Amino acid sequence: MPAKNEDLHGNVPDKSDVALLLIDVINDLEFDSGEELLRHALPMSERLAELKRRAKAAGIPVVYVNDNFGKWQSDFKKILAHCLEEDVRGRPVVERLRPDEDDYFVLKPKHSGFFSTTLDILLDYLGVKTLVLTGLTGDICVLFTAHDAYMRDFNLVVPSDCVASNDPGENEYTLEKMARLLKADTRPSAEIDFGELKRLAARGPEPTPEPQARRFAEAE
Amino acid sequence: MPAKNEDLHGNVPDKSDVALLLIDVINDLEFDSGEELLRHALPMSERLAELKRRAKAAGIPVVYVNDNFGKWQSDFKKILAHCLEEDVRGRPVVERLRPDEDDYFVLKPKHSGFFSTTLDILLDYLGVKTLVLTGLTGDICVLFTAHDAYMRDFNLVVPSDCVASNDPGENEYTLEKMARLLKADTRPSAEIDFGELKRLAARGPEPTPEPQARRFAEAE
Amino acid sequence: MPAKNEDLHGNVPDKSDVALLLIDVINDLEFDSGEELLRHALPMSERLAELKRRAKAAGIPVVYVNDNFGKWQSDFKKILAHCLEEDVRGRPVVERLRPDEDDYFVLKPKHSGFFSTTLDILLDYLGVKTLVLTGLTGDICVLFTAHDAYMRDFNLVVPSDCVASNDPGENEYTLEKMARLLKADTRPSAEIDFGELKRLAARGPEPTPEPQARRFAEAE
Amino acid sequence: MPAKNEDLHGNVPDKSDVALLLIDVINDLEFDSGEELLRHALPMSERLAELKRRAKAAGIPVVYVNDNFGKWQSDFKKILAHCLEEDVRGRPVVERLRPDEDDYFVLKPKHSGFFSTTLDILLDYLGVKTLVLTGLTGDICVLFTAHDAYMRDFNLVVPSDCVASNDPGENEYTLEKMARLLKADTRPSAEIDFGELKRLAARGPEPTPEPQARRFAEAE
Repeated sequence: MPAKNEDLHGNVPDKSDVALLLIDVINDLEFDSGEELLRHALPMSERLAELKRRAKAAGIPVVYVNDNFGKWQSDFKKILAHCLEEDVRGRPVVERLRPDEDDYFVLKPKHSGFFSTTLDILLDYLGVKTLVLTGLTGDICVLFTAHDAYMRDFNLVVPSDCVASNDPGENEYTLEKMARLLKADTRPSAEIDFGELKRLAARGPEPTPEPQARRFAEAE
Repeated sequence: MPAKNEDLHGNVPDKSDVALLLIDVINDLEFDSGEELLRHALPMSERLAELKRRAKAAGIPVVYVNDNFGKWQSDFKKILAHCLEEDVRGRPVVERLRPDEDDYFVLKPKHSGFFSTTLDILLDYLGVKTLVLTGLTGDICVLFTAHDAYMRDFNLVVPSDCVASNDPGENEYTLEKMARLLKADTRPSAEIDFGELKRLAARGPEPTPEPQARRFAEAE
Repeated sequence: MPAKNEDLHGNVPDKSDVALLLIDVINDLEFDSGEELLRHALPMSERLAELKRRAKAAGIPVVYVNDNFGKWQSDFKKILAHCLEEDVRGRPVVERLRPDEDDYFVLKPKHSGFFSTTLDILLDYLGVKTLVLTGLTGDICVLFTAHDAYMRDFNLVVPSDCVASNDPGENEYTLEKMARLLKADTRPSAEIDFGELKRLAARGPEPTPEPQARRFAEAE
Repeated sequence: MPAKNEDLHGNVPDKSDVALLLIDVINDLEFDSGEELLRHALPMSERLAELKRRAKAAGIPVVYVNDNFGKWQSDFKKILAHCLEEDVRGRPVVERLRPDEDDYFVLKPKHSGFFSTTLDILLDYLGVKTLVLTGLTGDICVLFTAHDAYMRDFNLVVPSDCVASNDPGENEYTLEKMARLLKADTRPSAEIDFGELKRLAARGPEPTPEPQARRFAEAE
């Protein structure tokens, strides 16, 4: 009987029930509403840097899911270098969140991290069951990614202080909706215990209520 | 030079720039919040039946995108028959919206009509550019489908009186958000002119603003 | 922590490490080369009917993966009825292989059973690791499906006497290639022991050799 | 009416009916059968370099579709640098085929260039109808990619002297099969006229024969 390919041809050696996603944080913020977004992204990046530090200490793989900006679609280091230039608006955010050599990277051409990307297969090989979603912006790319993750039955954690949007009210509302409809855990980052997340994810799924009823009852 | 397969092996003979989607309307509503949803779905179904009538008169293909309920995953007629039984809660809705022989049908296993279904390829063969989204529930399956349609660059029309959710406030909010973020046209169904939709869709895309800026400016 | 959705909203209650796929067997064979294909499909259908019988006795789910023929994309029973009409060429094949009430059905718009269909998510919910592929035709739709299954890391079993093509030489060659490149087990159906398949699949993947080397060494 | 996003957020500014794909050519060939493959890849790379030169002169976009080797999934330049080191077996191939700044790059985690990658959306934005497939190895990654391209209704051109496999007999057979089943044009690269390809692709699809019959008659 042929063997299942365990490690995606050597490129995904890690195994982990939990993964931390950073969405669109490598970003020059050089657009009209960038100044406004920066105001919220800056304090967020501080908390996220600390969350990432704790994730790595706990052996949780970190995945950057990011827009591409140039034609050479894989030249993420060039994007990174650009975002770290002196006069770039997003620089203080990017500086705090610059990727480590052992972080993963997924290029996304559209809003959701799952749409036409390698993310699906990467998470499959890692064996991830619980996704911690963070980044920019809460009400667009993080929400689109959360929807797609929910349909794939991932457990969702979206720390309320590690996502930012242009409008704090929209950010708040989106978080509340993700908690209600997607069953996302939105506790602030300081309350996240990666050891507990790992234990819960490893324990696997709980029994579910009646199926069809459940989906339509989700909005209640 | 080999010929492109024009009609998906004979099964998609129509060509249309515009399509009307009815999401999860073939539904027994036999779940906890079904009574509540019925209150909003009932008047909605009347408007939607009229919209569908006008769509077909204008030569617009109609696609039912529906949950499956039984194991025989394709036995939609059986689902339909069940929903039309005397004591089924959803019956008055289903009666008004029962499919015609020439309507299309797409079975969806999850919330979005695009996730792990044949919808993508059906719309591709039809040549659709503009999607009119209707059905249940506005804040879950219609919204998930709208997100996926937006990432695929469809023009979106979501008639405000042809979607229903358990909570009218949530329905309203979701519509407002689809208008703002997904550039959906949410005018009520009576104001929809299918002839105009066809002319606009045929005219093709307008010039777009600066790319990266645009996505992040979407929330403004 | 939110629970993983265990049974795809009630529609996929089975759990099985092994599944049997019947590809394009519900087929009227009413095309130019149909007479030729029938010559090979007829004896094949006898063996396949027996294999299906043994699979069901062993609790293995059976999935029909079939082209659609009509516009009502889900009306599989209508296709079935058509194929069972008196003067239809494929009738003797279809009669032997007619689906049971508890079989699954996946409509495929193109050659591979995985392309733009619900198959991926169905197999995911069933928990399948080993796929037994059978049906028509060996060198096209079965091969396309096998490629897609291989990329998804399924163990493959393709019983040499349960696939048929127009040209027996091509059928033979394709089987030999699936054995060599896709590591498919191509032993004849009589030698398949479903109990053993289940034990092997449950045992999980064996250690794999060096990754990149492996893919390029596959053709040796 | 909302505008269709024309250029994938600025990252795909080109429009072209034809694209040239180079599959897995950035390759160190450092595996068991690498010496053998090099024997066939070396003369192939000479012809391919010339074909690429002519493609670019004709304004045809060039897309590298390549395995990833490291964890930093997007660091293609690092892969490239590695393959250009003094003692690397694949070096003479890579030297001839090194990407230009304006070439596109798609990272593929598995055999087909379409599986869990950004290729679909890239080709969609480019507006490609005809794909010229080249690279390594003809009977595995090129064939898997050709199958997926065929299901997406691309016209296929696979120049017989611009693909290489470990075994020349297998290479030959695969080409013959792609010509017959996938209607691929397999003329040698010297006979490819990009101007003619563009004219044919722009002319669009020809009328197709009866659908279902066609698929099953494909093997004749």
